[in-house]
Amino acid sequence: MEFIRNAWYVAGWSSEISNDLRAIKVLDEKIVIYRNSKGKVFALEDRCPHRFLPLSMGKLMGDNIECGYHGLTFNCEGNCIRIPSQKKIQKTLKIPTFPIIERHGIVWIWMGEKTLFKNYKIFDIPQFSESGWEVHQGEALYLNSNYLNVAENLVDPAHVSFVHPTTLGNPSSEDVPVEFDTSGEVIIAWRWIRNSPPIGFFKEFPGYKNNVDRWHYYYLYLPSIAVIDFGSIDSKEEVNEKNRHLGTQIFAIHLLTPVSKNQTIDRWMHIRNVALGDELVSEKIDSMFKIAFAEDKKILEAIQNQIDTQHKKNFVHIGIDKGAIIYRKRISELIKSEARDKILSHS
Amino acid sequence: MEFIRNAWYVAGWSSEISNDLRAIKVLDEKIVIYRNSKGKVFALEDRCPHRFLPLSMGKLMGDNIECGYHGLTFNCEGNCIRIPSQKKIQKTLKIPTFPIIERHGIVWIWMGEKTLFKNYKIFDIPQFSESGWEVHQGEALYLNSNYLNVAENLVDPAHVSFVHPTTLGNPSSEDVPVEFDTSGEVIIAWRWIRNSPPIGFFKEFPGYKNNVDRWHYYYLYLPSIAVIDFGSIDSKEEVNEKNRHLGTQIFAIHLLTPVSKNQTIDRWMHIRNVALGDELVSEKIDSMFKIAFAEDKKILEAIQNQIDTQHKKNFVHIGIDKGAIIYRKRISELIKSEARDKILSHS
Amino acid sequence: MEFIRNAWYVAGWSSEISNDLRAIKVLDEKIVIYRNSKGKVFALEDRCPHRFLPLSMGKLMGDNIECGYHGLTFNCEGNCIRIPSQKKIQKTLKIPTFPIIERHGIVWIWMGEKTLFKNYKIFDIPQFSESGWEVHQGEALYLNSNYLNVAENLVDPAHVSFVHPTTLGNPSSEDVPVEFDTSGEVIIAWRWIRNSPPIGFFKEFPGYKNNVDRWHYYYLYLPSIAVIDFGSIDSKEEVNEKNRHLGTQIFAIHLLTPVSKNQTIDRWMHIRNVALGDELVSEKIDSMFKIAFAEDKKILEAIQNQIDTQHKKNFVHIGIDKGAIIYRKRISELIKSEARDKILSHS
Repeated sequence: MEFIRNAWYVAGWSSEISNDLRAIKVLDEKIVIYRNSKGKVFALEDRCPHRFLPLSMGKLMGDNIECGYHGLTFNCEGNCIRIPSQKKIQKTLKIPTFPIIERHGIVWIWMGEKTLFKNYKIFDIPQFSESGWEVHQGEALYLNSNYLNVAENLVDPAHVSFVHPTTLGNPSSEDVPVEFDTSGEVIIAWRWIRNSPPIGFFKEFPGYKNNVDRWHYYYLYLPSIAVIDFGSIDSKEEVNEKNRHLGTQIFAIHLLTPVSKNQTIDRWMHIRNVALGDELVSEKIDSMFKIAFAEDKKILEAIQNQIDTQHKKNFVHIGIDKGAIIYRKRISELIKSEARDKILSHS
Repeated sequence: MEFIRNAWYVAGWSSEISNDLRAIKVLDEKIVIYRNSKGKVFALEDRCPHRFLPLSMGKLMGDNIECGYHGLTFNCEGNCIRIPSQKKIQKTLKIPTFPIIERHGIVWIWMGEKTLFKNYKIFDIPQFSESGWEVHQGEALYLNSNYLNVAENLVDPAHVSFVHPTTLGNPSSEDVPVEFDTSGEVIIAWRWIRNSPPIGFFKEFPGYKNNVDRWHYYYLYLPSIAVIDFGSIDSKEEVNEKNRHLGTQIFAIHLLTPVSKNQTIDRWMHIRNVALGDELVSEKIDSMFKIAFAEDKKILEAIQNQIDTQHKKNFVHIGIDKGAIIYRKRISELIKSEARDKILSHS
Repeated sequence: MEFIRNAWYVAGWSSEISNDLRAIKVLDEKIVIYRNSKGKVFALEDRCPHRFLPLSMGKLMGDNIECGYHGLTFNCEGNCIRIPSQKKIQKTLKIPTFPIIERHGIVWIWMGEKTLFKNYKIFDIPQFSESGWEVHQGEALYLNSNYLNVAENLVDPAHVSFVHPTTLGNPSSEDVPVEFDTSGEVIIAWRWIRNSPPIGFFKEFPGYKNNVDRWHYYYLYLPSIAVIDFGSIDSKEEVNEKNRHLGTQIFAIHLLTPVSKNQTIDRWMHIRNVALGDELVSEKIDSMFKIAFAEDKKILEAIQNQIDTQHKKNFVHIGIDKGAIIYRKRISELIKSEARDKILSHS
């Protein structure tokens, strides 16, 4: 199992990182992360080079980290600045650090080639900044499943009828074909379900009773972020696909952090075009998502268990897998390409 | 570790299989088993070929199984009959099935070469069908031990004095030699303990107080079924071995299912020639067996643990092991012979 | 991972071994240990050669061990003296035994070449036997960490300021250089902290309030025993290092048993030159040590976890590691030398 390294991954919500040492794991690496006294976030390898104690078990002394075993102290650049009872400090006592950018309430970490991070964009969508949208951070869902399984689920409109029958899907969407656009950087899968009963979610909020036109657009950004634009509008409006913002439109954003081979954190949030500023509505949406995502978790962890314990290894693909197939192929190519670049840069 | 595949194994008591999906494991394979609307039992590999979700996590739609992830539907023959939102169904979406026969309240499964199952008999003894016997199903004992260790224990009259001192054995049997007949298909080990105090079991039921003649006949059927014919009769009767049915005679039947390398289910039942129809007596016998089998479980799991964690691998055999030695040798030969047949059939 | 075999290791406190079978593990070997009817301690490999059941699951019959499965009986020399229902006893039914010596309330076991044990001394210090000292056995600390990590911590005066800030260390010792004497068999590390506030331990007992002179002498005996001589005396006394017995002097003794690759038992005791016979003082010292050793346990288990899960393998050494480096080097050489001797003795 290898990961794409040259990418900005989510280290946590801004609210998770305080002026205290915190241990996290990203791409199977242990990292200590903290906010210094001026509010800036820093991330270092979570291991004292001396005896390997996690630095997160030490303590912050001002803006520096003191190891909990022998008091070796490192600054935010990973340089050792103190060895108690010793004057000279070896240069080998140097800890790798990871570039950090904080934006829109999210802390992003760079795990790749140090020289390249400025060339890579951080995920953004206009709704983060434009007016007319209510942006609400949800929670962090911990999944014992590889991030590829999770991401695949997020470019897959077809599962909602079966996995989420009381919230995000219902039988009227079962046989509606999924459409794809895999020509651009972002992989897109979608379907419209016209003139049919509303799903549980929209019966609860905003409370549709009559038949609606419903859409699910899934946008998958490599390596591991998904935006799902879904919504409904009274079928009588006969709205054109381009004008779906006239209905109730919700963006569910899934920021996946590959933690290890079999662990993924899905930090999710939502953005909507109605009930702006209404915290009760945000909470209602949260609670419906939590029901749905717990259903996904059960499926995705069972699949990981099957992959780990069964001899057969090859999925049989069907029509709805077009997005997933392209996704896995691109991931695989990117990993190979990074490996090639690494060899070249060392030769 | 390999298993004998060409044999009928116990999938469960009839009472365990209902009109609902149930996950079981036999010979290290995950299987979904269910009873259809007409009461017939079916068993399929417990994995949707699409994304490997266990089918047991889906639901029965009539007599077919709908996968819980994307609604792919399979009939009892393992054929895919529906892919939601897709018209054409690939032939590769085919799930292996396992022949099932239900008899005497037991569900038997065939894990071997599909073409051969009709040539193999299902375990039977006359007492299942003849009058004059009270047949009583016990419980399922889950053992974290390889089935060979468990079966070996069931062709071994010598351990009862030491492992079951309050129920099935007592010191008067310690030094009575064990006799063997390994000439036939069924391996037999036995001993008679003449004119000695009754064991705890027969003191409880039917309540012997004076000295008895006591017998233990162990019949081991390959690959993994044992019948233990044991009983007692007042020593004054001076009964001949052939006439032991004149005493209190009990058959303990152990139906072993190899679940995995280190897991075995022992479904046990008993048949007796006295107190017919008396449910209280059946329960008393159950409770005594449960004490005894918990004692075996402790031993058999400790042995498995030793095999897994110790470097030394070879048992030192003694005289009482004659049945066990023949048993392991035959199992080993059968596994080799199946491997040979498989190569021949593919060449 | 290999262990030094030619050495006396601690099998237990005398109080842990009674006239009953007890399972222990030393150098990754399972051992059954018991005290016979005359009070003498014996140790055998904890496995019946017949079916591998741990003999510790059997029972003592007089001074012999009866296996709990089939009653095979072994005497304290590991010879089989009974096979129920069989007259002849195979010579292969022989169990390895381990020499045992009991002294000063400690049971020592020899895991090495059988012929050599008489050449090796058992750990001793004069304070065990001389008057003027209160000897008190503490407890057994179970650590999920390799014994090398634990022993290294016991030749390391520098960690106390950071790991034990409320009991054994305080900031005034942080920058005092550690001194070493690695010229002899016992590796010694120490430091004196002159004219500074007492540590928590000595504030509690004997209750120093003014500045003290404080010392920590660490003596590491290979393979895995440490004596820590530490104490304090009012700074006004201006005591010479040789005369530290004029102050409050405590010997903390750590008897490490390597249990497996990642498990160590640290049986600890203490000896003091004050408050002789005062059980309440012994208990107070126990309770302070328990706080401190729980702090070490947290560090040492975290380090083991890092070693097990991280790719980087080489510690960066600093000045305070001089004792640890010599210790690991000598252990490594001894293991190699034993391997060489073994090859020679077989050629």
